[in-house]
Amino acid sequence: MCCECGCENSKWAVPIGISNRHIHLSKEHIEALFGEGYELTNIKDLTQPGQYACKEVVTIVGTKGVLHGVRILGPARKDTQVELSQTDARQLGINAPLRESGDVQGTPGCIIIGPKGPLVINQGCIVAKTHVHFHTEDAKRMNIKDKDKIDLLVKGQRTVCFCDVLARVGDTMKLDFHLDTDEANAALVKNGDLAYIINRD
Amino acid sequence: MCCECGCENSKWAVPIGISNRHIHLSKEHIEALFGEGYELTNIKDLTQPGQYACKEVVTIVGTKGVLHGVRILGPARKDTQVELSQTDARQLGINAPLRESGDVQGTPGCIIIGPKGPLVINQGCIVAKTHVHFHTEDAKRMNIKDKDKIDLLVKGQRTVCFCDVLARVGDTMKLDFHLDTDEANAALVKNGDLAYIINRD
Repeated sequence: MCCECGCENSKWAVPIGISNRHIHLSKEHIEALFGEGYELTNIKDLTQPGQYACKEVVTIVGTKGVLHGVRILGPARKDTQVELSQTDARQLGINAPLRESGDVQGTPGCIIIGPKGPLVINQGCIVAKTHVHFHTEDAKRMNIKDKDKIDLLVKGQRTVCFCDVLARVGDTMKLDFHLDTDEANAALVKNGDLAYIINRD
Repeated sequence: MCCECGCENSKWAVPIGISNRHIHLSKEHIEALFGEGYELTNIKDLTQPGQYACKEVVTIVGTKGVLHGVRILGPARKDTQVELSQTDARQLGINAPLRESGDVQGTPGCIIIGPKGPLVINQGCIVAKTHVHFHTEDAKRMNIKDKDKIDLLVKGQRTVCFCDVLARVGDTMKLDFHLDTDEANAALVKNGDLAYIINRD
């Protein structure tokens, strides 16, 4: 380490971004839920360039429960994807598997309710695999390659180490450790707190 | 380690017990919620000797939300204590601090609803500190003393290490690593899965 004190100047510090439950929609599903030709409204840019939180929210229905006010993230994607924490999935009664974002083939569906009525989707519900985004320059500086598995220590009110976390490296990415709400609450951390890389492949 | 393979025969294996949200009630509060002279009904003994889940459930109300069907654990305690995950606490709008079980002084209260009506408590809501119970003989075998801090590795679908976990040793305790639902879901483990002690004070 360039700095052993665990401060924000440490070479190995990565800011934490907490993903609350959210949904990515295909163009077809945006129109089914909000009407023909509807365009999502960007209200806040996210850390990863080009990604944004939308004004629009939907209701998600499973066999055991309902979640209101689930935020849509834009832009539209090829496949609709509902990203839940395991706590959410249990509450909904949806047996969502642990998957990398984008890998929705064969996952369970749900019902999505928007202003134009309910939409049944046949797949798309996942619990997202934890991952770290690296800009190419950050990855170079830390000697990390795309798809490396790394261990990150998080010292919130609880101290937790997340192991074998996938590294994703790209020129359009920004340094960011994505935790879902279960993981963030397990360590009792908040957005912008720091994690420290303590081990690499 | 006597066994490096991480199997259930490992000297360092500890079974995981997941604590869902629950409530311990004082005798006075049992009577306020269920009527004079009421006795709780044991429907299931818990891992720790003398502790049991009751037939009775209550509703917990905070400033932002409501949780129905919150299980009472018996027997009656000196002080009423509502044990929540951070996810529960957020949903209720209760700023429950991280505390050791039993340490409720100065914590926020809530409203508890039972068949005899609502009861306002002025303190008692906590997020419980993770801990491991050891029978004295297990502790001796592992060279662990009461109040030691230990690190435990959990290999669920996600691999997570819980650090600086409090060891509690006693003749009436049974080997058991208590996680709340956020922590269990962060690692995607279930009741009875094994954790491994990888570090001691």
